[in-house]
Amino acid sequence: MNAVSEKDLERILREKGLRVSSHRLYILKFLMENRIHPTADDIKKAMDKQGYRISLSSVYNILNSFVERGIVQELLIEDGSVRYDINTSPHAHFKCIKCGRVYDIDVDIMPVLKATATADGHEAITGQLIIYGVCKYCKEESSKN
Amino acid sequence: MNAVSEKDLERILREKGLRVSSHRLYILKFLMENRIHPTADDIKKAMDKQGYRISLSSVYNILNSFVERGIVQELLIEDGSVRYDINTSPHAHFKCIKCGRVYDIDVDIMPVLKATATADGHEAITGQLIIYGVCKYCKEESSKN
Repeated sequence: MNAVSEKDLERILREKGLRVSSHRLYILKFLMENRIHPTADDIKKAMDKQGYRISLSSVYNILNSFVERGIVQELLIEDGSVRYDINTSPHAHFKCIKCGRVYDIDVDIMPVLKATATADGHEAITGQLIIYGVCKYCKEESSKN
Repeated sequence: MNAVSEKDLERILREKGLRVSSHRLYILKFLMENRIHPTADDIKKAMDKQGYRISLSSVYNILNSFVERGIVQELLIEDGSVRYDINTSPHAHFKCIKCGRVYDIDVDIMPVLKATATADGHEAITGQLIIYGVCKYCKEESSKN
């Protein structure tokens, strides 16, 4: 992901009806440049390091306002934490049970969502496919040992 | 789902290394006979009605012991609640955004999980497919109006 200009970030916030603030700008930029599916806590820690003074509940409030406007999607993983993803198109996620990392898998899952829902007469709008297993890096590690 | 005998329930608990207690038996039976993906709170309310004296944290403890032993699976839905499912095979779930109900869709999602993970070099073990949309009953309702 290339760096995003301040002007682009401001435009996104304004288009979604959000007032531009330094906290909103930072969080949006962080999500765009760090595709690590961070938790609110991860974001708070990054902001602390940069010298921002912000409470965890304010981070949550900003993230919730992003979720409500479709700027980010919430991602619920089995460890009970809520993670945030700037990629709002329906795509798959893979969580490694060894190293704990969460990877994007950039396949369009809409055809699977639609076919699965239609089989029972329901209508799919969106969805999440979360896969748990061993990632390619941990597989390599264990094959070396 | 047919009614399950007390003996079957006791056998399941014992096979999984759990002591048989009236609370464990009730919760296991409830999950087997009510395929509604209940929350811990739903189960507590059902037990209150039946005259059981149990705290919400005890309900959670029992559910966690079931999850650890693979008797039930946790299901994380976007409303933030944890729901419990006695069907532990990887299958799909559909949440209706109109009525809020969560339906099972009994398709084997392992082939999709494996194919999607393998595409990026990862190895799938299990996973969840959660679809959000409008259920067949709400679709019918809205077509009448």
